Amino acid sequence: MNISKFVTPEIIFGCGSLSQVGESALRLGASKVFLVSDAGVINAGWVDKALFYLKEAGLACETFSALTTNPKDFEVDEGTRRYLASGCDALVAVGGGSPTDVAKAIALLATNGGTLRDYEGINKIVHPLPPMVIVPSTAGAGSEVSQFTIVVDTVRKLKMSIISKSLIPDIAIVDPELLQTKDSLLAAATGLDALTHGIESYVSLAATPLTDIHALKAIELISRNLRRAVADRQDMEANTNMAMASLTAGMAFSNAILGATHAMTHQVDGLIDQHHGETNASILPHVMEFNLDTSPGRFREIALAFGEDVSGLDAAAGATRSIAAVRRLIRDIGLEKGLGQLGLQKEFIPLLSRNTLKDACLVTNPRSATYEDIVAIFHRAM
Amino acid sequence: MNISKFVTPEIIFGCGSLSQVGESALRLGASKVFLVSDAGVINAGWVDKALFYLKEAGLACETFSALTTNPKDFEVDEGTRRYLASGCDALVAVGGGSPTDVAKAIALLATNGGTLRDYEGINKIVHPLPPMVIVPSTAGAGSEVSQFTIVVDTVRKLKMSIISKSLIPDIAIVDPELLQTKDSLLAAATGLDALTHGIESYVSLAATPLTDIHALKAIELISRNLRRAVADRQDMEANTNMAMASLTAGMAFSNAILGATHAMTHQVDGLIDQHHGETNASILPHVMEFNLDTSPGRFREIALAFGEDVSGLDAAAGATRSIAAVRRLIRDIGLEKGLGQLGLQKEFIPLLSRNTLKDACLVTNPRSATYEDIVAIFHRAM
Repeated sequence: MNISKFVTPEIIFGCGSLSQVGESALRLGASKVFLVSDAGVINAGWVDKALFYLKEAGLACETFSALTTNPKDFEVDEGTRRYLASGCDALVAVGGGSPTDVAKAIALLATNGGTLRDYEGINKIVHPLPPMVIVPSTAGAGSEVSQFTIVVDTVRKLKMSIISKSLIPDIAIVDPELLQTKDSLLAAATGLDALTHGIESYVSLAATPLTDIHALKAIELISRNLRRAVADRQDMEANTNMAMASLTAGMAFSNAILGATHAMTHQVDGLIDQHHGETNASILPHVMEFNLDTSPGRFREIALAFGEDVSGLDAAAGATRSIAAVRRLIRDIGLEKGLGQLGLQKEFIPLLSRNTLKDACLVTNPRSATYEDIVAIFHRAM
Repeated sequence: MNISKFVTPEIIFGCGSLSQVGESALRLGASKVFLVSDAGVINAGWVDKALFYLKEAGLACETFSALTTNPKDFEVDEGTRRYLASGCDALVAVGGGSPTDVAKAIALLATNGGTLRDYEGINKIVHPLPPMVIVPSTAGAGSEVSQFTIVVDTVRKLKMSIISKSLIPDIAIVDPELLQTKDSLLAAATGLDALTHGIESYVSLAATPLTDIHALKAIELISRNLRRAVADRQDMEANTNMAMASLTAGMAFSNAILGATHAMTHQVDGLIDQHHGETNASILPHVMEFNLDTSPGRFREIALAFGEDVSGLDAAAGATRSIAAVRRLIRDIGLEKGLGQLGLQKEFIPLLSRNTLKDACLVTNPRSATYEDIVAIFHRAM
């Protein structure tokens, strides 16, 4: 018996779809909305626009934005206190992966109590969460459709993966216009995160036909649009395609889970606080090399999705082309940096490797990895 | 502003997944389940199996199976009376499109009152429906994931299309093992229905990138598996691929709606009571010819999904190959029959054509059609 599950929220997609946020919260039964965002998104004017639509729908609102990239456990605790004191009955996030993951984590703690560490891993949530509407402002995290929230445990200095169907928002509103106010570095880093989602979910041990079509579509769109999106932040065709890529990659990894790259970056991000997409860029090609022999046919499909010509090549040679294509893309968008350059010191590799072995994302990596394997990949990625 | 929506239920897929029906109904809050099925599915033993799992989950059950292919309004009325008298608080359908559409229609009338005709068209449902779990026993209707229910109005002798997000079931359980007990003719007809869903949603005016990937996947799977599934009903690889094709085609048409083929077959099916897949087979190639010039690029993609070699052909010539591929498939699975052979008499064409113009599915057909256009297509399809 080989049974798979596939769950996504309702998805509203298109330029101008931010205008649907008020009506969306309203039909979920909201009366007062807790809006989670961050300073950058507020300064770009998107939160004011969202508040306009929410108030137009007759909803009271309270805004929370005291959070950072790679969101921290104490930021979630503060948000939860504020949510509980506010009388709000629904959450809206407008922002990238950080505000979204914080909104989900607040929704979790506000209804289930305890601390985030109690829910680390898979399926630990018992009570239903309040309604959530997510409006992503980056094309990368995919958290608007996923059953993940990823928050830094500042004591253990690692990212906790909390995975549960309860964390899937009710409605994802994907408006590519929000991407215009993000700079090229963020576009590159978030786009590379989406690519990592696509590749890791496509070769995941939990991949299914339904996750496959979403993963491959994401890879294809990213290979054709990420360079353009990084070069010109006003290129709305590239932005729209990247928004769709991030969304389909999210639908894939939410249901197929990820692999060793994410299991490793979750540890690095807890320590050095660089953008998650940049650490993915440092590690992904090395993990692909590690995994290559387990599923050459799948890596060959990834090469094809990149538009590589693999005719006349055997499976192994075709598969290798996928890594070359990923390396070229990483170089072209300016993310070709080792973990050392990003600020990681070698002496942390043993600790990071031990913690990697405990990360839920390692379970679905197509090749099982020992402590020594992970240490070796970290060294190659320095 | 070009905003699209995409909604699907939770999907549980795989051989043996029928075993999830009890736990699924339970976590939706059911205490007593109204199980809708039909005589064929009961005789094949699937209802007994479903009842076993439902009772194992501690649920009381009542079974309703007084329905026919192309389900009728009076059957829904009787089912609604039985549901309301039963004290049930959830519905489970185990069967093809007919039991599923009846279950949805009962859920609608039991909570919203009135008669089905009150809800014909798009978005007329006001009150929430009881929880619904659908277990399809055919690979074709796609109703397990769609926002459609299609029921015959026996007074007007036509099929009413009722379309609303409220009609999307909560959970679709797709177990390919159920396909084994259906005969080859039913496998052919339902598979051709799924193909029509894939093709009509792919060229629909409401198609989106998300519906496109599901529609093309369905067409690709059907072109490679339907002949095998018809030839050997125990070929579980072909059955599993057809189950996935029906599912992805359902995800596509539920969100992109359909076209002229379905607008026309809905009228025919109300009159002559043949299997909906057979009437689709008679009409589809003629509607494809009618639509061809509006979107040759899309029809060329359909030809590619069929594995046709279109290299060196211009868009129009490549597009034409899609029709040839569909005709070959229809012939190979034994459905090459005109509407006349299926029992339609020519004198009904004016009435059917007038009613076609009122069908909600005609709105998204890529080429707008006049009364004369529809009459001409009906005549070609005789």
